[in-house]
Amino acid sequence: MEESVQSEYFELLKFKSVGADPECFRDCVDCASWLRRWLGKLGFEGEMLYQEVSAANGGRMPPPILFAERKGDEGAPTLLVYGHYDVQPADPVSEWKTPPFEPTVDNGRIYCRGAQDDKGQFFAFLCGVRDYLAGDGPRPTLKVVLEGQEESGSTALEQMAPSLRRRLAADVLLVCDTGAASGLRPAIIAGLRGVSHFTIRLSGPNRDLHSGEYGGIAPNAAQAMAELVSSLHLRDGSVAVAGFKDGIEPPVHDELKAAEVSAPTKEELEKDIGCESAGGQLGKTIVQRLCFEPTIEVNGIHSGYGGPGAKTVIPCEAVAKISMRLVPGQTPRSAFEAVRRHLEDNVPRGMKLSIEDYNPGASGFRLPLASPLFRLAEHVLGEMDERGPVFVWDGASIPVISAIREASGAAPLIVGWGQSEDRIHSPNESYSFVQFEKARDWARRIISALVG
Amino acid sequence: MEESVQSEYFELLKFKSVGADPECFRDCVDCASWLRRWLGKLGFEGEMLYQEVSAANGGRMPPPILFAERKGDEGAPTLLVYGHYDVQPADPVSEWKTPPFEPTVDNGRIYCRGAQDDKGQFFAFLCGVRDYLAGDGPRPTLKVVLEGQEESGSTALEQMAPSLRRRLAADVLLVCDTGAASGLRPAIIAGLRGVSHFTIRLSGPNRDLHSGEYGGIAPNAAQAMAELVSSLHLRDGSVAVAGFKDGIEPPVHDELKAAEVSAPTKEELEKDIGCESAGGQLGKTIVQRLCFEPTIEVNGIHSGYGGPGAKTVIPCEAVAKISMRLVPGQTPRSAFEAVRRHLEDNVPRGMKLSIEDYNPGASGFRLPLASPLFRLAEHVLGEMDERGPVFVWDGASIPVISAIREASGAAPLIVGWGQSEDRIHSPNESYSFVQFEKARDWARRIISALVG
Repeated sequence: MEESVQSEYFELLKFKSVGADPECFRDCVDCASWLRRWLGKLGFEGEMLYQEVSAANGGRMPPPILFAERKGDEGAPTLLVYGHYDVQPADPVSEWKTPPFEPTVDNGRIYCRGAQDDKGQFFAFLCGVRDYLAGDGPRPTLKVVLEGQEESGSTALEQMAPSLRRRLAADVLLVCDTGAASGLRPAIIAGLRGVSHFTIRLSGPNRDLHSGEYGGIAPNAAQAMAELVSSLHLRDGSVAVAGFKDGIEPPVHDELKAAEVSAPTKEELEKDIGCESAGGQLGKTIVQRLCFEPTIEVNGIHSGYGGPGAKTVIPCEAVAKISMRLVPGQTPRSAFEAVRRHLEDNVPRGMKLSIEDYNPGASGFRLPLASPLFRLAEHVLGEMDERGPVFVWDGASIPVISAIREASGAAPLIVGWGQSEDRIHSPNESYSFVQFEKARDWARRIISALVG
Repeated sequence: MEESVQSEYFELLKFKSVGADPECFRDCVDCASWLRRWLGKLGFEGEMLYQEVSAANGGRMPPPILFAERKGDEGAPTLLVYGHYDVQPADPVSEWKTPPFEPTVDNGRIYCRGAQDDKGQFFAFLCGVRDYLAGDGPRPTLKVVLEGQEESGSTALEQMAPSLRRRLAADVLLVCDTGAASGLRPAIIAGLRGVSHFTIRLSGPNRDLHSGEYGGIAPNAAQAMAELVSSLHLRDGSVAVAGFKDGIEPPVHDELKAAEVSAPTKEELEKDIGCESAGGQLGKTIVQRLCFEPTIEVNGIHSGYGGPGAKTVIPCEAVAKISMRLVPGQTPRSAFEAVRRHLEDNVPRGMKLSIEDYNPGASGFRLPLASPLFRLAEHVLGEMDERGPVFVWDGASIPVISAIREASGAAPLIVGWGQSEDRIHSPNESYSFVQFEKARDWARRIISALVG
């Protein structure tokens, strides 16, 4: 890496752009302004988009969204680059070996909060954009959207996206915020699951009751919640909710085959999680369950006494947090309505049900394996690495990608260069020079291929 | 009430004998010493029993147990009086209208922490003992055991009881620590349920997992706990645990009939608890479910995220607190072993079960309605109140009574004069002069009847 590039990269890393922390708002604005100036030097017109303060963002202004555009040749494709300049908090700071916002090089790796996620990844990509523009190839129209709230929910961008259709409109959406396969083998995200979440509350008696004086008489909210939650699944682990899976698109043979390439084995998974891989439906493969099946997960149940010793009460209230991972063919609304009906039909005797904090989140999506875009990306990545890319149907969700995809009309091409040893979200996050250069090289090559 | 009695009563109330609070240890000792002197004046020999400090009492010496004895005539029966001089903490102090340890008279009631529970009740009873001794009737052997830990579990007395068999041995155990029926109609406790409790822990993955990256693969401890807990009951609310109810003694017709007399109606109960009385087995009456059936209650379930908003995790661990109310024919051990087997046979896939903090507690008991002791008590109470007594099979448990009953071999005669307006355990606890005099009169009369 040229010294000048490293020095820019380090400047970017030093901004304490913890988007979730109101104390860091100024750092976020400074970081976005720095990026605007940096893009300005490449001929981009930048603007800072601020969400209005309202109840929707808790009465607090979120960090700005930087939108920048560089007009290209008439008739050339429009490429939209998404990234986020906000980072996870550095806590626990005491576990960092070097100061979390002081980039430190050791053995080919840069240690700093955000070194990878996502400052390192998107900045490497933008350096590749600059490399491309330094040449004399055809000029695509380039758009860049960098938000400051990805680590805390992307609410501003998700809410503003529909009103930014004109700005965001593009042919291809390029995202560098994911991982490569093991051994840095290139990986193309061919699908993501969607996600929705909500809270269930069951209320029974008007107060916690004495389990002697009322046991056998009063309904128990903890037991009721256990019954309600367990009714969501059948004994074989499949979802018991009528209508929940209506219309989902099962994977085709080629997708299943391609997904197997990079899927972990049962043994690897069980070593990782430390227990039997007993989630999901009995009889389905790991790839089916993780990549192509929707889930309903209980993220938490809380009711009654939980301290040391005993308190022999009949709890009057129970709360469960539920999230769903969705697959193509489901919408957040259709899935939620099915679950809502199921819950209402199964309220235990003596209980009142309320469903709160429903967040529709995002649909899942899958891109056709045979699309020209994927063929092109496969070719480019095959030139970069003789192993060629793997295709990944990620069980996780990036709701903001769904929102930008819908607002921009662009086909997402999601290729990132993370590795598990980068320890994103943990102390001592890092990114290697090798990874940085891969991301940079990928950007230059894919733009060249897309405009060629 | 004579002024001298009121002044003694108030002296007793002023001791801040919060047995659970280490800061009040000295107050507890002073209170017990005061009682020892008071009983000494009646010819009792008192001794203070201290439990050795050990792991069993958390390395802290509990308040002393006062044991006092007054030898009676050759061949006269031995009567054992149980009470507790410790009181509930006064919190929240700000809700008291008068200082919690300053007895205050208002409209025929004495307001003070412990005015009723149990200082007021047992002291009224002891005043009745003194009244009896002031006469020239035959002298029974009188034994008094007053503990300082009832509100925090009676662990010292329960643990020491078996070694106090000789001291405690008696014919009748007299307890004045319960309520009368509404309108101060006398009530005899004909049965109590037993109680046991323990904690269940399910452990799955080695950490909370991302519900996208692992959803469908990793087992979910919150969902597993919901399944395990809901497996304890059938759809009709009955206990699903094989062997749990083996050997229980169903109530006879006379017991059911007598229990109905003082049982609340469905409407009263539902007004009280604020919801449908949907606990226990469908098709059984309230009296059956509350007085004569055992229960398994979930006192709490805690797993995963419970804060505001969402955290889409797969929880790695779940904890449930379980208590059981037991009826005659069950032992704590037999009931626990049945539940333990059920839990072990139903551990959800991918989970490890551990059962912790098992506290065997106490068996339940029922006294034969037709016993001479009950006939005698019924007669005495019929003289005091023309309505005569009701018999109560209390769904709750007083484990220490079970322990003393077993160690003393005595038949328990449990008659107290509490009313719900006394607000025991709450701010502004009180006891009326009328109730005090009832308890005192009852003591004098029943002793007279027992020795006569």
